[in-house]
Amino acid sequence: MSRISGFSKLTKLEKIDWLSKHYLSEYPDAKTIIQQYWNSNEALQKLHDEFTENTISNYYLPLGVAPNFKIDHQLYAIPMAIEESSVIAAASKAAKFWLDKGGFKTEILGTTKVGHVHFNYKGSTEQLITFFESIKSKLIAETNSITKNMEKRGGGIKDIKLINKTEALENYYQLYCTFETVDAMGANFINSCLEQFGQTLEAEAKSYKAFTEEGYFPEVIMCILSNYVPGCLVRAEVSCPTSLLGETQEEALKFVQKFTQAIKIAEIEPYRAVTHNKGIMNGVDAVVLATGNDFRAVEAGVHAYASRRGQYSSLTHVSVKNDEFKFWIELPLALGTIGGLTSLHPLVKLSMALLKQPSAEELMRITAVAGLAQNFAAVNSLVTTGIQKGHMKMHLMNILNQFEANAEEREKAVEYFKTHTVTHSEVINLLEKLRAE
Amino acid sequence: MSRISGFSKLTKLEKIDWLSKHYLSEYPDAKTIIQQYWNSNEALQKLHDEFTENTISNYYLPLGVAPNFKIDHQLYAIPMAIEESSVIAAASKAAKFWLDKGGFKTEILGTTKVGHVHFNYKGSTEQLITFFESIKSKLIAETNSITKNMEKRGGGIKDIKLINKTEALENYYQLYCTFETVDAMGANFINSCLEQFGQTLEAEAKSYKAFTEEGYFPEVIMCILSNYVPGCLVRAEVSCPTSLLGETQEEALKFVQKFTQAIKIAEIEPYRAVTHNKGIMNGVDAVVLATGNDFRAVEAGVHAYASRRGQYSSLTHVSVKNDEFKFWIELPLALGTIGGLTSLHPLVKLSMALLKQPSAEELMRITAVAGLAQNFAAVNSLVTTGIQKGHMKMHLMNILNQFEANAEEREKAVEYFKTHTVTHSEVINLLEKLRAE
Repeated sequence: MSRISGFSKLTKLEKIDWLSKHYLSEYPDAKTIIQQYWNSNEALQKLHDEFTENTISNYYLPLGVAPNFKIDHQLYAIPMAIEESSVIAAASKAAKFWLDKGGFKTEILGTTKVGHVHFNYKGSTEQLITFFESIKSKLIAETNSITKNMEKRGGGIKDIKLINKTEALENYYQLYCTFETVDAMGANFINSCLEQFGQTLEAEAKSYKAFTEEGYFPEVIMCILSNYVPGCLVRAEVSCPTSLLGETQEEALKFVQKFTQAIKIAEIEPYRAVTHNKGIMNGVDAVVLATGNDFRAVEAGVHAYASRRGQYSSLTHVSVKNDEFKFWIELPLALGTIGGLTSLHPLVKLSMALLKQPSAEELMRITAVAGLAQNFAAVNSLVTTGIQKGHMKMHLMNILNQFEANAEEREKAVEYFKTHTVTHSEVINLLEKLRAE
Repeated sequence: MSRISGFSKLTKLEKIDWLSKHYLSEYPDAKTIIQQYWNSNEALQKLHDEFTENTISNYYLPLGVAPNFKIDHQLYAIPMAIEESSVIAAASKAAKFWLDKGGFKTEILGTTKVGHVHFNYKGSTEQLITFFESIKSKLIAETNSITKNMEKRGGGIKDIKLINKTEALENYYQLYCTFETVDAMGANFINSCLEQFGQTLEAEAKSYKAFTEEGYFPEVIMCILSNYVPGCLVRAEVSCPTSLLGETQEEALKFVQKFTQAIKIAEIEPYRAVTHNKGIMNGVDAVVLATGNDFRAVEAGVHAYASRRGQYSSLTHVSVKNDEFKFWIELPLALGTIGGLTSLHPLVKLSMALLKQPSAEELMRITAVAGLAQNFAAVNSLVTTGIQKGHMKMHLMNILNQFEANAEEREKAVEYFKTHTVTHSEVINLLEKLRAE
């Protein structure tokens, strides 16, 4: 255990040697394991090393594909990067289930993104309003070098509003700014615009007579986009006659009743809503990751949206009217299909090719569908066989790998667990028994 | 574009061939790119393929290390798996800053996990209460085969309560169950217990006289753990005299004033809180991923916790008293250091070795610290230089890679952007100019 100066300046091998010496001395294979994950193509490895700082290796997430997704009459095979077993299987199963029932229908409800200049000001609000109106066109004009390319693509700054927040916090005001960023997620564009707004605001204020007379000037605290994007919203839906939801009329009715109750529980019980939405995000994040988008941004915006009415609640909803079952989701999703990692990570490029080079709006539709499909599959399992049966079957392979089961042991285990419940200790017991034979 | 039956049954190569033919025909390099990411060690690749379903390749996330974290008087080099540039750099910078100011102090506030049997019941609540009391010990007894190993490790079922939720939703009741899962995240353990509770509940109800007389029986809707874990909570904190927060007394005061205002803004403005907490999760998720934990579970629980008072709010807080600056976070974190991927993914094992084989509680402490450090670094940048300067410097390398800049072009670009603002279009302009020379 040791401190170090200039770690980031070391070469990758020097970093690994330092870690080996100071933190991994009891783990002599460390260096071999780290290097085993390097790509043999040096240029490709260098590309990945430079994505971030102090990189020592490549962390593998499985990249899989869920085929048979029919979305707005188009078929997709959706790339998903995720480590959790059963997520891709569940997505594929839901896709197949809805394939012959009209598939998924989607709608873009908005594409507006948001950012703020947060600032303090101690003087009179009227003065500030007058000042803001007088500089509003200049705020926009001075971002010209930042916005010109975005405008060519049909995007740009939509509006800037002055918001008085002094009732919530002393002296606190905002420039509330809205943006259209077309196919880019737009974080860098928005933050660059906002920082320029902040600079213009402070510079103009300095020479504004009323402020000089008052002795109070606006002071910028920070300029930053918001990952809360309720105006960048997509809806996805499935529907079918209730009779298609079971082998028999009775089974279908039972399923609809239990499924509906499960969704209603997630609407009113936050403890359930959190896990319900977590399952949705299994699907959403897998697509977000595979397409080089930022899952932390998406997660934060989605969960805040789930709490927008004051109590954390379900993101999916269900209705049954005239024997028509309808199940839908509304998700705020600020995604990009250009910029960032999208044109940089070769497997992200591959994912984009697999999705036929989607626009940001198309990617919003696909991602929302992945979330809805995941939720349908999860709730379906929960109200019928229970979640553990399918999940543990998937996890069985992982446990067998962990104990380095050979081909014969694996075969016997699969056979045995066709009629027994998979638990971690039951798998160990079985292996011990097989090995003692 | 095509549908397929039995995709999951195909071999990996057959899957790739099918995708190449039906979705990637305009992308002839697809197969080469997919295979370029395979590990040359076949057994290792097989291990990763079996983590989930329909795996075609390994999605690389950079695995980096942030050294110099002093946590409760112990030094750590923290493994972080994250694709976003500047996250690891920011963590390292914050770690270094606090290293000589006492480092990070942490406290475990609870380790209780939660799950529910959600069920319907139309009869009298009094009957149900009497029934529940009569079967409570049996509910626990019948999970014996599931709990015995957990109990050996000091964990198990803590309590089962019957909750009447009929005011929120007709006929809806819960068994609200609490668990201690020690060093396991415990999802499989908890879900297995809950499904057994559900089975026992329904089986016992069938022969319960009062229900038979009434004609109403409890009907289980679903049995599932909750990822909302406000009882599994860790606190992390830094503190120092305010005078240490700037080169001069004036600079320190200014910093403290702006930093404090930035945190207070995140406390009262959900638009800001979402991005504020997103930055925290950059640090948290990077550790969660590197240690083989489930970031969707953590994200859902954390953001729901951020909305627990009815308005989505900041996870970090600040106080200044008697010239003492204190900055802290409280995070619900259900993490495991055994089970799941932790003993399976060789790089997760490496991460655990780097952290000196932490207990789940130690990993909670480390992860919360990574979140707090990330937030300190982000807010520090925001209230001083702005976020773009540092971020775009980091991103410059990515843009240069994208346009395949050679060594000379890279050197000139780095030099040029020492005095100019990095934007995507400015980098392109510069490269075009260099290439036209």
